[in-house]
Amino acid sequence: MAVSNQGARTAGDGEAMCPHRLLLEHVTSRWGVLVLIELLDRPHRFSELRRAISRWGGRVVSEKMLTQTLQTLERDGMVHRDAKPVIPPRVDYSLTGLGREAAQQVRSLAAWTEERLDDVEKARRTYDEAREIRSRAS
Amino acid sequence: MAVSNQGARTAGDGEAMCPHRLLLEHVTSRWGVLVLIELLDRPHRFSELRRAISRWGGRVVSEKMLTQTLQTLERDGMVHRDAKPVIPPRVDYSLTGLGREAAQQVRSLAAWTEERLDDVEKARRTYDEAREIRSRAS
Repeated sequence: MAVSNQGARTAGDGEAMCPHRLLLEHVTSRWGVLVLIELLDRPHRFSELRRAISRWGGRVVSEKMLTQTLQTLERDGMVHRDAKPVIPPRVDYSLTGLGREAAQQVRSLAAWTEERLDDVEKARRTYDEAREIRSRAS
Repeated sequence: MAVSNQGARTAGDGEAMCPHRLLLEHVTSRWGVLVLIELLDRPHRFSELRRAISRWGGRVVSEKMLTQTLQTLERDGMVHRDAKPVIPPRVDYSLTGLGREAAQQVRSLAAWTEERLDDVEKARRTYDEAREIRSRAS
């Protein structure tokens, strides 16, 4: 794929990264993916969002990581943070138009993984069996 | 999002993970994304693929990580590994039908990040400016 280095940013290890690769990493990051999908349903408060993500199972998102993920997506113009001047304070997170565009694509990829899971699991069994046969033969 | 725990797998930290979340992590992993996109163009040999990925800039994929990524995608039935019985040995990696389905979605997400990069960069400038104003005021 042809890539341009115009406006290249610096990655953690000091190498120039295509700016759209960096953006792709934001929308495909472990927690970014789940935040986008959950916010596509409706706005969430921080703790609600954390609970919604935990229902996917696996590693639980820490408060720090969720805060970081939301900040990254907010800075990218995909998430809107609405701090209501009430007592106790209430902060709602929702998607912007840009965020919805990304989230719809990410959700359809997630739907694909559900639809195709059986085929993937069949492939894994075949792979593991072939591997076992090879290891027995050697 | 409603999730079922049927056939749940165990994640690194011992929590049950929805099997399709695990699969979603495979296709959205840092190197998985780039492998799928590059193989959508045409089959690649290992070293060709490594070079193609390096053209995206940023962190360079190590041989170990690329091997691991390819094995995961091969086991999931998305990548086909074709070891030709020639001297010197030649191994080609290509996408299966299942892999093409995932790769097309991932590539369209990548195309979206290119199309929308200007809007995202504008949002980042606005965010940073607002932050700077707040920090000066306090």
